[in-house]
Amino acid sequence: MTDGESKRPTATARGIVSLVGAGPGDPELLTVRALQRLRSADLVLYDGLTPDAVVALAAQADRVSVAKRVGRKALTQQEVSERMIAAALAGRRVVRLKSGDPFVLGRGGEEAQALRAAGVPFEVVPGVTSATAGPAAAGIPVTYRGVASAFVVVSGHERAAYEPVLASISPVTTIVVLMGIGERARIAQCLVAAGWLPETPAAVVVNASRSGEKIWTGSLATLGVKDGIGSRRQPGVLVIGHVVSLATVPDAGDRFR
Amino acid sequence: MTDGESKRPTATARGIVSLVGAGPGDPELLTVRALQRLRSADLVLYDGLTPDAVVALAAQADRVSVAKRVGRKALTQQEVSERMIAAALAGRRVVRLKSGDPFVLGRGGEEAQALRAAGVPFEVVPGVTSATAGPAAAGIPVTYRGVASAFVVVSGHERAAYEPVLASISPVTTIVVLMGIGERARIAQCLVAAGWLPETPAAVVVNASRSGEKIWTGSLATLGVKDGIGSRRQPGVLVIGHVVSLATVPDAGDRFR
Repeated sequence: MTDGESKRPTATARGIVSLVGAGPGDPELLTVRALQRLRSADLVLYDGLTPDAVVALAAQADRVSVAKRVGRKALTQQEVSERMIAAALAGRRVVRLKSGDPFVLGRGGEEAQALRAAGVPFEVVPGVTSATAGPAAAGIPVTYRGVASAFVVVSGHERAAYEPVLASISPVTTIVVLMGIGERARIAQCLVAAGWLPETPAAVVVNASRSGEKIWTGSLATLGVKDGIGSRRQPGVLVIGHVVSLATVPDAGDRFR
Repeated sequence: MTDGESKRPTATARGIVSLVGAGPGDPELLTVRALQRLRSADLVLYDGLTPDAVVALAAQADRVSVAKRVGRKALTQQEVSERMIAAALAGRRVVRLKSGDPFVLGRGGEEAQALRAAGVPFEVVPGVTSATAGPAAAGIPVTYRGVASAFVVVSGHERAAYEPVLASISPVTTIVVLMGIGERARIAQCLVAAGWLPETPAAVVVNASRSGEKIWTGSLATLGVKDGIGSRRQPGVLVIGHVVSLATVPDAGDRFR
């Protein structure tokens, strides 16, 4: 459990890229390996949603946000890949830090393909996904015997991507939508049109595990019309299904003001 | 990031139960908080699949397996809950250590309900679920732009639980089955009956992130007939969908001998 024992995929002098899951936001929800990789990185490329407290753990590294910033455009996916590859080929230890788990939405798979095509050594360090940590922050288990035997995780970013998924989901499946704050009304409509009851419990968790964490619980009927639930730019998770009524966080309810 | 800064839900002298996700098995894939909780625990109740190297991190704690052991039956769910509650009420710090994430299958939700009903302070420490770490061990991203916009996680333990879920899944959804090694033939049949092509890529990852990790890749047609893929008692993950063909682990393929 020390740096020396950490299993890196190569022992050569060449550089390497670690695709690292940053977890939902709280630095204590990083894995031990993620923390080690950050501490020994030469270069960290991080997304816009990564909290400063997590990025700061890579104290000795060059730290570069790939997101849009004042006076500067976001790096394109290709620019991110090129930058990782160039740094690794120059012998640097690169951490590509991604919110949650690197292979759950967010294009970690595309980056892995680019690294493989370039012949650059790389590894994937899995992380705690917001798809489970979001519901857990509200005390909601995504599965529960006799209530839900499965859960589906889908991006709410694009209607064309979520509609075919939601149109056929069995109601014994809990639905977890990442990046779905802005589309919540349409998602609720889509499910009701597919036969889900408007009374089905629903929750929204914004900023799970971070400062500013907020939880709202209601139903499919109220999910779309409730105002003031975070913004498209905040990390937010929708949870839809009967497991929502099992929430054990004592003051779960409407904490949006 | 030290023990002193760790956010516990209460500051009283009373005991507390932490429902802690142990991750997929590798001790480096514990979260920082999980490691802290193990190190400061008085009592650890752990499942049969938890690796010794993880349990051993709770060096100062009484460590009790709740699984079946030679000469002794497994504790029932009620006995586990009673034991946690009694210890916490006696002022002890209890860690209930669960494979993967405590709220993904495995009855963490039931334990949270029992703790709430008993009025015992508790917290949930999310973990890296095998539902994503299993595929990642084979270099498989569960989502990928243009290939899969969603993934579903289901238990393969009971046919009555997985059949209604699988019968209606859209093929743009990656299917991840936990505890499905023994049912893989039936699961493949069920999907083909629902219209999935027998050529759909499929993978099995046994002992992800542990010693003895093995990966097999094939198709729905071969998933059911392939012999020698682990046993029902090993942690195993099935992955079904076109993302399997994007696996980047260089020697992915049939590593079962």
